[in-house]
Amino acid sequence: MQQYDQNNIFARIIRGEIPCHKVYEDAQTLAFMDVMPQARGHVLVIPKCEAVELTDMPDDYLQAVFNAARKIITAQRKVLHRDGVVQLQLSGEQAGQSVFHYHIHLIPGHIHELAKHESTPADQAELAQLAAQLRGELE
Amino acid sequence: MQQYDQNNIFARIIRGEIPCHKVYEDAQTLAFMDVMPQARGHVLVIPKCEAVELTDMPDDYLQAVFNAARKIITAQRKVLHRDGVVQLQLSGEQAGQSVFHYHIHLIPGHIHELAKHESTPADQAELAQLAAQLRGELE
Repeated sequence: MQQYDQNNIFARIIRGEIPCHKVYEDAQTLAFMDVMPQARGHVLVIPKCEAVELTDMPDDYLQAVFNAARKIITAQRKVLHRDGVVQLQLSGEQAGQSVFHYHIHLIPGHIHELAKHESTPADQAELAQLAAQLRGELE
Repeated sequence: MQQYDQNNIFARIIRGEIPCHKVYEDAQTLAFMDVMPQARGHVLVIPKCEAVELTDMPDDYLQAVFNAARKIITAQRKVLHRDGVVQLQLSGEQAGQSVFHYHIHLIPGHIHELAKHESTPADQAELAQLAAQLRGELE
């Protein structure tokens, strides 16, 4: 397993050093739009702790990120009018993990559609609008 | 969301009506080899409760399946000599969910390799051997 790097991009987003299109936040978690979405409405949920992947996630943060994910999936279904949501977590570079801070992908789409669009950055205005719609459902 | 069907294949595996190549079991969870593996060593972890997907999973069972997953990933890395493990959960038929009992896929491989082999059933003897090796690491 990689060592935790306090300057990884998600740590910097948590500290507010890099902006994000925020969808949800509580004491233990933060959720925001993926800027390289694999489907429209792709959200990332991360814990506010130093964990690289599942094997070093503390129990309470693990519960917190999946609690947040539950709420966000319900909001995604309402906003995107899609019932199917893929939940994906990658452990290790060999699996395709590129940021070494634990994160859950919540992707409104079909498993067979994934990874087709991941090299295309999304339109920032559209991400901002989607984030606002999802926040609206979560309030 | 689909209604829970007590005769889905995973409920029948839990009741012992259908055999499986068991990897791990505790009071709240069961893990076994996927018979249509998307990569060698593909394991499924399921809760012993009636839940269709993340949104209807009780907190304690959710914690239990991810605790089990943590242990199994560590065992997979040792047995399969691969560092990368994809964790995948599908919510809804539109996402590709085909058994409507919550399950976590633990797939030793890269996200881009998935879904290439899923129409090919695995050799039963090889699954039995892999299950035995993983159980050995988990003891």
